[in-house]
Amino acid sequence: MSRDDFAPISGMVLPRFAGIATFMRLPHLSPAEAAGRAEVGLFGIPFDGATTNRPGARHGPRAVRDQSSLMRLVNGATGVAPYDLARVCDLGDVDVNPIDIADTMGRIERFVGEVVAGGIVPVAVGGDHLVSYPVLRVLGRRRPVGMVHVDAHGDTGDTYFGGQRLTHGTGFRRAIEDGVLDPRRTVQIGIRGSRYDADEYGWAVSQGVRIVDMEEVDRIGLDAVLAEARRVVGRGPTYLSFDVDALDPAYVPGTGTPEMGGFTSREALRLVRGLRGIDVVGADVVEVSPPLDPTGMTAMVGATVLFEALCLVAEALAVRRGVERAA
Amino acid sequence: MSRDDFAPISGMVLPRFAGIATFMRLPHLSPAEAAGRAEVGLFGIPFDGATTNRPGARHGPRAVRDQSSLMRLVNGATGVAPYDLARVCDLGDVDVNPIDIADTMGRIERFVGEVVAGGIVPVAVGGDHLVSYPVLRVLGRRRPVGMVHVDAHGDTGDTYFGGQRLTHGTGFRRAIEDGVLDPRRTVQIGIRGSRYDADEYGWAVSQGVRIVDMEEVDRIGLDAVLAEARRVVGRGPTYLSFDVDALDPAYVPGTGTPEMGGFTSREALRLVRGLRGIDVVGADVVEVSPPLDPTGMTAMVGATVLFEALCLVAEALAVRRGVERAA
Amino acid sequence: MSRDDFAPISGMVLPRFAGIATFMRLPHLSPAEAAGRAEVGLFGIPFDGATTNRPGARHGPRAVRDQSSLMRLVNGATGVAPYDLARVCDLGDVDVNPIDIADTMGRIERFVGEVVAGGIVPVAVGGDHLVSYPVLRVLGRRRPVGMVHVDAHGDTGDTYFGGQRLTHGTGFRRAIEDGVLDPRRTVQIGIRGSRYDADEYGWAVSQGVRIVDMEEVDRIGLDAVLAEARRVVGRGPTYLSFDVDALDPAYVPGTGTPEMGGFTSREALRLVRGLRGIDVVGADVVEVSPPLDPTGMTAMVGATVLFEALCLVAEALAVRRGVERAA
Amino acid sequence: MSRDDFAPISGMVLPRFAGIATFMRLPHLSPAEAAGRAEVGLFGIPFDGATTNRPGARHGPRAVRDQSSLMRLVNGATGVAPYDLARVCDLGDVDVNPIDIADTMGRIERFVGEVVAGGIVPVAVGGDHLVSYPVLRVLGRRRPVGMVHVDAHGDTGDTYFGGQRLTHGTGFRRAIEDGVLDPRRTVQIGIRGSRYDADEYGWAVSQGVRIVDMEEVDRIGLDAVLAEARRVVGRGPTYLSFDVDALDPAYVPGTGTPEMGGFTSREALRLVRGLRGIDVVGADVVEVSPPLDPTGMTAMVGATVLFEALCLVAEALAVRRGVERAA
Amino acid sequence: MSRDDFAPISGMVLPRFAGIATFMRLPHLSPAEAAGRAEVGLFGIPFDGATTNRPGARHGPRAVRDQSSLMRLVNGATGVAPYDLARVCDLGDVDVNPIDIADTMGRIERFVGEVVAGGIVPVAVGGDHLVSYPVLRVLGRRRPVGMVHVDAHGDTGDTYFGGQRLTHGTGFRRAIEDGVLDPRRTVQIGIRGSRYDADEYGWAVSQGVRIVDMEEVDRIGLDAVLAEARRVVGRGPTYLSFDVDALDPAYVPGTGTPEMGGFTSREALRLVRGLRGIDVVGADVVEVSPPLDPTGMTAMVGATVLFEALCLVAEALAVRRGVERAA
Amino acid sequence: MSRDDFAPISGMVLPRFAGIATFMRLPHLSPAEAAGRAEVGLFGIPFDGATTNRPGARHGPRAVRDQSSLMRLVNGATGVAPYDLARVCDLGDVDVNPIDIADTMGRIERFVGEVVAGGIVPVAVGGDHLVSYPVLRVLGRRRPVGMVHVDAHGDTGDTYFGGQRLTHGTGFRRAIEDGVLDPRRTVQIGIRGSRYDADEYGWAVSQGVRIVDMEEVDRIGLDAVLAEARRVVGRGPTYLSFDVDALDPAYVPGTGTPEMGGFTSREALRLVRGLRGIDVVGADVVEVSPPLDPTGMTAMVGATVLFEALCLVAEALAVRRGVERAA
Repeated sequence: MSRDDFAPISGMVLPRFAGIATFMRLPHLSPAEAAGRAEVGLFGIPFDGATTNRPGARHGPRAVRDQSSLMRLVNGATGVAPYDLARVCDLGDVDVNPIDIADTMGRIERFVGEVVAGGIVPVAVGGDHLVSYPVLRVLGRRRPVGMVHVDAHGDTGDTYFGGQRLTHGTGFRRAIEDGVLDPRRTVQIGIRGSRYDADEYGWAVSQGVRIVDMEEVDRIGLDAVLAEARRVVGRGPTYLSFDVDALDPAYVPGTGTPEMGGFTSREALRLVRGLRGIDVVGADVVEVSPPLDPTGMTAMVGATVLFEALCLVAEALAVRRGVERAA
Repeated sequence: MSRDDFAPISGMVLPRFAGIATFMRLPHLSPAEAAGRAEVGLFGIPFDGATTNRPGARHGPRAVRDQSSLMRLVNGATGVAPYDLARVCDLGDVDVNPIDIADTMGRIERFVGEVVAGGIVPVAVGGDHLVSYPVLRVLGRRRPVGMVHVDAHGDTGDTYFGGQRLTHGTGFRRAIEDGVLDPRRTVQIGIRGSRYDADEYGWAVSQGVRIVDMEEVDRIGLDAVLAEARRVVGRGPTYLSFDVDALDPAYVPGTGTPEMGGFTSREALRLVRGLRGIDVVGADVVEVSPPLDPTGMTAMVGATVLFEALCLVAEALAVRRGVERAA
Repeated sequence: MSRDDFAPISGMVLPRFAGIATFMRLPHLSPAEAAGRAEVGLFGIPFDGATTNRPGARHGPRAVRDQSSLMRLVNGATGVAPYDLARVCDLGDVDVNPIDIADTMGRIERFVGEVVAGGIVPVAVGGDHLVSYPVLRVLGRRRPVGMVHVDAHGDTGDTYFGGQRLTHGTGFRRAIEDGVLDPRRTVQIGIRGSRYDADEYGWAVSQGVRIVDMEEVDRIGLDAVLAEARRVVGRGPTYLSFDVDALDPAYVPGTGTPEMGGFTSREALRLVRGLRGIDVVGADVVEVSPPLDPTGMTAMVGATVLFEALCLVAEALAVRRGVERAA
Repeated sequence: MSRDDFAPISGMVLPRFAGIATFMRLPHLSPAEAAGRAEVGLFGIPFDGATTNRPGARHGPRAVRDQSSLMRLVNGATGVAPYDLARVCDLGDVDVNPIDIADTMGRIERFVGEVVAGGIVPVAVGGDHLVSYPVLRVLGRRRPVGMVHVDAHGDTGDTYFGGQRLTHGTGFRRAIEDGVLDPRRTVQIGIRGSRYDADEYGWAVSQGVRIVDMEEVDRIGLDAVLAEARRVVGRGPTYLSFDVDALDPAYVPGTGTPEMGGFTSREALRLVRGLRGIDVVGADVVEVSPPLDPTGMTAMVGATVLFEALCLVAEALAVRRGVERAA
Repeated sequence: MSRDDFAPISGMVLPRFAGIATFMRLPHLSPAEAAGRAEVGLFGIPFDGATTNRPGARHGPRAVRDQSSLMRLVNGATGVAPYDLARVCDLGDVDVNPIDIADTMGRIERFVGEVVAGGIVPVAVGGDHLVSYPVLRVLGRRRPVGMVHVDAHGDTGDTYFGGQRLTHGTGFRRAIEDGVLDPRRTVQIGIRGSRYDADEYGWAVSQGVRIVDMEEVDRIGLDAVLAEARRVVGRGPTYLSFDVDALDPAYVPGTGTPEMGGFTSREALRLVRGLRGIDVVGADVVEVSPPLDPTGMTAMVGATVLFEALCLVAEALAVRRGVERAA
Repeated sequence: MSRDDFAPISGMVLPRFAGIATFMRLPHLSPAEAAGRAEVGLFGIPFDGATTNRPGARHGPRAVRDQSSLMRLVNGATGVAPYDLARVCDLGDVDVNPIDIADTMGRIERFVGEVVAGGIVPVAVGGDHLVSYPVLRVLGRRRPVGMVHVDAHGDTGDTYFGGQRLTHGTGFRRAIEDGVLDPRRTVQIGIRGSRYDADEYGWAVSQGVRIVDMEEVDRIGLDAVLAEARRVVGRGPTYLSFDVDALDPAYVPGTGTPEMGGFTSREALRLVRGLRGIDVVGADVVEVSPPLDPTGMTAMVGATVLFEALCLVAEALAVRRGVERAA
């Protein structure tokens, strides 16, 4: 396969609504097939078994694949052309076990481990937000990564329902405890909504996590938020985790835990585009829940943010490649 | 509370769309409050964590409660007036753990145990079909019960996904293995659809379960099906388990595992009404999945079948009471 | 205007989805403009203020107009070509007062009075079922008419909510009391569902109304039902009142008071077509509620039944015309 | 019942999607049971009989109850913990008469009268906007109250349809005429849309009502709007009436009279939170219409604004209590 | 690739909602890759440019692929195991030109020509019904094929809109005129609905087409219909064309030209299964229109009928193979 | 007909949900009937045959008509009362040929030609965006017009799918090539989204088209955008073409080519209102796709923008009339 084999089918050759739905209309290869050939791998983690509220995110990857046909080749705002910068493919879905959380965590970790071992930057589509945890366990194995986390919820709770430690609201606490996520290089943007108790985010803050809640966003403005994010993560390897419920439910009705008062779509795009230059080593887009999304527009948001994340990842990869070559 | 306190609020006093939605607009009492006073208890089991396919049935009890406001007081077809025959109430929902199957099985069993210990006949609304299993474990504790099981699927598989024994497709196998369900007094009606392998129902048949699949229904007709059901369960205590996916998806789009070619609503009503005279000691209606049910008509079917099941249960109770008095 | 001016625009001239939506793509004339020229008038009564349960039928006429574009020129089953038999037009909507029942009853009666005075057979689209009452007050003014009433509910209750006499559940009782509807020439077909009390239909039966409930339909079959309907209404002038909730909710989710276990669409068509030969002097189709009808298929059923009713009315008109000419 | 008995069931004990849906998962008591014990009462007024356009708001209270399960215990933006400040419960729904406006006005007034007589601050969920009128008649009985009114429409019309004085567009004119609402202490925020005539708001302005229309909001900004609102209502007892159609239809498609160009959800939250310190003595949230709300997000907005209103009411109550104690 | 490479991924290995959606979860190969290796090829023709009424069928193949994940391995009613009988794969979609009918007809014909040249039996998913025409042009190239055509409409019109010869209502006339479809071996089942003129089907009948309209179906019953179908097509090579609008809109709301009064799903299944033994040499399922199908149940019907058609095709292939071997 | 005959039916006479749906509840006249009497004509162009992606806009005119009942008489923001300034009517729909682009272009051009010849300013509702092209061919026949074009896409592509020149993405290029649209007096506002290639808008810019993309909107603000628009179009005759996909999908989910990150509704209103004073000689609102719009709010946006465009057109007409009189 040549470089052209790792790029989308053109909408001029096959109409955009036609063809088997892969992410961005990219070729589908298994991690084994892609190893050593692809540079960025998009894949689905169709698991929502850790959802404490409304389920459905297990259907997210398929819906995002379907809507991603609307994405074209070049980023109109930044000019980035990701398929010119990297060989990209669809790696399919992780073979999750829908009714066993621990088993599934292991399966995701093995899948991502194989991807990374094959020299491929992982970009995942959830699924509920717990799926970020095993990805971080792979990426932060040698040294903890930093993270830009865009979300309405911090997901740093300890336990649910009398002791459950693995839920979609506790994943990042586990990642910090495991030493794969560096809390002092972690920034959470967009946190909002009513709380279980006044000190819900006390533990995270005590670990060094920087929380920019929605009130602060309104107060300081997006440019300052972006500057703060860059300050926190610095130059080290950084993960981008984007929960679509960061946006207001008007933009993303199809998500399990909606919170009134979120980002507009334009703010969300500015936010992701504003991360250019950070060394993004992996990313995910999670919590798209198609049964709650009658118009498909939540999945469309998911697909667009995925495209933006791909642009970040491809650029960062090109920078690292340049640095290596220079070295 | 007098007998009138265990009957629905009249639609002439409070319009049917008004008021807090309880099952049938009945009073809400906890199992502890109802013990020794109510005779039949309707309750929800909002759990779909054992679903191997499309989730959402955890939202079933609320949606069935909402639609059950459309039910009035007297069965128009049979003349049965359940609230004249028994004191009925809404017992609320079991406090399930949405992300732990085994824990939830225990919680359901404890809840139903308390209900039955309080002298109350349990009538449950799911939730996915695994929720029948712990109910059966209570009802069949002393001696195995028989069952009329209306469903598109037999739910007697052994394991899923490499060893999972507790799924919504394996509950009745577990119940038979546990000795709480008598396979020789079990009839399954409406089975259909494509199969994982040719011998999918071999184990159940070998245990003595009588399967009347949809092709047989078409061949012999409903009257013969009902006669066969009566023959199988005989005079002993019998459970009614009704999975709404027994009906065709045109009637119940809002369910997780739809199969083309199911019962019409009129057949379904004839089927349940035709069970009058059987000693029904408990019942459930399961697999209503509101996120997949934009018109609410699946929940309306659930509510109507629940009303019919309540009529069966109340009549059977009155018969048992008469027998006791006569004795 | 020539005869051709009282027929639909052809789908070969203007595509069926195009153009301003009138009933059957017919010309729109006010009752005053149509008087003495049109012979059958289709009109809307967008009123749901007498609904005791779920509202929305006020939007029925527009939705039925939209879907009626799907109707063509000739009845495929009976061969009747209504526009060859009669000059037909859309008379627009009655100028109802959405928040005053009594005022609206007067407005409907005046509108229909003008239609009938203009020599036009009235065919109405509701709105809730109370709208039939003022139509009957016009048609039965000189002598009471008979009625074929297809419905899940008898609508012969006395009062609601402490004395309300004009509701969508009491209209036909009022019509009988007023002497405009002959109960002994009235047959109600398809009645079903749970009841407020065991004797809900006692009054109607005591007046001589013949009720063929759904259980009897199942028992005796449609041919016998039709024979009985003909026997009851005989040769006298007869009104056809068709509540779409006679059909099962699978066919008509978009109606305010759905009842599980209704007619299939094929039965409904056979039922209406089977009334050929009766002297139908007016008709209505009611209770289409678009906000509850996401696919529009309930309105499509309404439009199709409206077309069938138009065929009946046009044929009966042609017969009366022939009789007059012969006389 | 202790204080804990007047607080929501925790989502850690019973998952948030489980259990009978009361407002905020609070205990349900009748006004008689709550009198002298509860301090704030949430209740529904499921009436839409005064709607001049698209109906459905009668189903609002149930849908808001369902979505209010998403609300937790502490306001994340303000830190207010309402259940620490006041004993709160769900008082059920007013027993409206869906087809008689005047009768219903009396029923609401009696219900609210009993609530207030029991020492409980009333917080209502509509229903159409006319339901505010009888609430004001109770609260302003001794002396007229002021009002912060957030809405796309002023609802100060005189009559509709040839003389109808009680409609959802005329309620506040009636309240001013009755002397229960002080127009000089009334501010209307968010008014917009096309008008029946150029002087539609002339009467209101002539009475002293301060109208901040959407163009002014855009011009002066939210901070100035809030300052103006505080200036108008001053320190006296003030009612908060929030019509969800103040928000743009993108946020609240499920409402009867949508107007393009409304508030964003973040502005709406800032607006309500910005009223802290005003002596709020009652509140309502109206015009949520579930049949027009396929994703439920309009009801979610209603539930969130209800939570914010509850925070205002509980704080104001605590302040009054403090003042009384100090006195 | 071994035989196992041409069978679906098991739902026990990868949950049925997971993975890239291909037809039946089969491997995806281009016609060139599949030539000489696969025996049956499922493919999509995402074209609705010939639709004269409501569009959307261009999205059909993707939606059918998604729902086809619900299909398992063995036909529960007939016992046929298609993947044991034939090597099957997904050939992707034809590269249609959405805005040029003639160009698209050529593209389909070339695609199917390549499929057939590769020794693969074509089974297509539409798209609108015109897509059958170029398939027939390939299959009937040497000698005209017979056809079992299940549909509400005959699709044998001459022209639309002043001369358009290629529309979704005229395809079979073109096929007969071209000599690729044998009208005397063609049976159309389920025709119904209002007509443009009384003689709409005169031409087809004059050519020898046997039309079994819905009234005849009701009169003679399905067994007689099936016997007649077998008589008409005889032993020669036969095409199966299944328009989902043959079913009633209650079962298939998501189709462009719904007609009240269609087949139930059970009748539809009996109809297709009843064609066993006919020499089916190709098949299609058309007119699934996802934008009109909010629950996805129309696509589910499409997927199930596709599975049944696959069973017919695989059996017929096995019979032909056996005959060849015996020869 | 008097001036009053060219104004909407009042919502006080006939409720707004009642009556046959014409644009703004205006009288319906054919172009021939309206010639010389009406001054502004609203009409539909129900054509989506040039759509390269998701179809459905053919149903736009009907849905916009239905929602336009919500529009009242006076613009609340600007005070403009269009029916006092001009005689307005609904001219019905162009008789498009849904399956032939070239034929339809001719039909539109003839229809608009007749409208303009009758002294009527044309205001069209699409349909897909290609429908603007034949309108421009009429309006720019003598001298090219300028244009304010609000859209997410520039629609100045050359060809699609191997040579298709007439698509909804190429219309304005054709208009510029034909010399009916002056590129140096054309401004495109709101362009955004991913691109087929980096130079997608190179041709347009080379012709002199001024593109204000969404990033520039964010950078310079709406006031500057409006100033720039006025500068570009100057005092000459100018067309307004408004594609609803200029708004964010949260506001307009029902459109064929949604792009994340669009205008809010308030910005869109400010944008159109800000064009007062420009000599608007015609306008269109396009790409409302009802099958993708379950809540109808996209059509409501279309109706509101249509009302705003009507205000612009009526004012410009009054200005021209005044100028003529003064001359």
